[in-house]
Amino acid sequence: MYRHSSSASRYSTHSAHSNYNPGGGFVTQGIRQPPPGADPTLWRWFIAVDTDGSNAISPEELQRALVNGNMTPFDIDTCKMLMNIFDTDRSGTIGFNEFVGLWQYIREWQNVFRHFDRDNSGTIDGHELSAALHQFGYNLSPALLSLVEHKYGTIAPATAYGPQSTGITFDRFVRACVVIKQLTEDFRRMDTDRDGWIQISYDQFMTSVLRAP
Amino acid sequence: MYRHSSSASRYSTHSAHSNYNPGGGFVTQGIRQPPPGADPTLWRWFIAVDTDGSNAISPEELQRALVNGNMTPFDIDTCKMLMNIFDTDRSGTIGFNEFVGLWQYIREWQNVFRHFDRDNSGTIDGHELSAALHQFGYNLSPALLSLVEHKYGTIAPATAYGPQSTGITFDRFVRACVVIKQLTEDFRRMDTDRDGWIQISYDQFMTSVLRAP
Repeated sequence: MYRHSSSASRYSTHSAHSNYNPGGGFVTQGIRQPPPGADPTLWRWFIAVDTDGSNAISPEELQRALVNGNMTPFDIDTCKMLMNIFDTDRSGTIGFNEFVGLWQYIREWQNVFRHFDRDNSGTIDGHELSAALHQFGYNLSPALLSLVEHKYGTIAPATAYGPQSTGITFDRFVRACVVIKQLTEDFRRMDTDRDGWIQISYDQFMTSVLRAP
Repeated sequence: MYRHSSSASRYSTHSAHSNYNPGGGFVTQGIRQPPPGADPTLWRWFIAVDTDGSNAISPEELQRALVNGNMTPFDIDTCKMLMNIFDTDRSGTIGFNEFVGLWQYIREWQNVFRHFDRDNSGTIDGHELSAALHQFGYNLSPALLSLVEHKYGTIAPATAYGPQSTGITFDRFVRACVVIKQLTEDFRRMDTDRDGWIQISYDQFMTSVLRAP
């Protein structure tokens, strides 16, 4: 477990810059060094998220690190989705190389989110959602757009005037887009004659739905 | 807004048993009284959850009140699902009569959960899930059962031995069962000749999926 098992006691401090290093690697003279060629900024972020200094980001560490613009934590299903996409070696954790991909993915989605959040409210409303999905090439009916808006909208405080219109936070916007992309791709793959209809078994139907994040 | 607007200052304390009562009703001589015929236990629970004393449970109050056996809060999608089921007058809040239904629903699911959590671990594992869905009359393939188990399993701490097997907490177990029920009913409704295959358009497909909680 310890890189230097004969001096394990030297590596017992738990902090963001801990030397405790059960995952091995990158410890040099008590300072965590980036892998050769690593972007120093990304390495600093990685060790900030990797709070137990294991050189691997656990799902819990990821969930603690990911917050929306309004400081609410990412919902559990979005965190699980990100783990599933970026834990490419299926270790159950995110290593530094996997983290680089995750970081870029989140940065790109942040740019998309800012672009479509036209009123800079920090959430995506119905009109902004419609514009985004249209630009991504999805042709959803108004009824479907309304379903997406309500499914992924956050829980808003009720007011004396009744239910408030709820916006979609960053985490749920990304998840909504991934779900729509994945389901649309599933459908198109099965729609071999491109007539907008498919023949599907119960097992195929349930598999498609349950695979979506 | 105030029942006694001429003496509004008397109703300014915010607490679980506050007299502040913008929703109207049930305030008698400074003590919140249950509606006629109300179960006193349920009324005590209702006013405990209704922390702002509005006689209506907001989505936020509901989310603060609902916790799993391991004290983790219910996930946002399960809270939204419960609001959608029980906010029958679409006011955006849960009144006392709606709360009675919600309370019974959760009690019944708690009994189901305890019944299938054979090892009393507080979560449902793969075998327990399989037993539950089989008893509910769903015939899911092992691959589908595995998908459900992973989709609704919670984020577990990674260990030195790799990803941990994750169990399904109460909130996500209820949501998984409701999703499977709803999708199976959708499928059966369309499978008019009962051959296990349906013809479905893109719009129908997406609507069915996005309506599921």
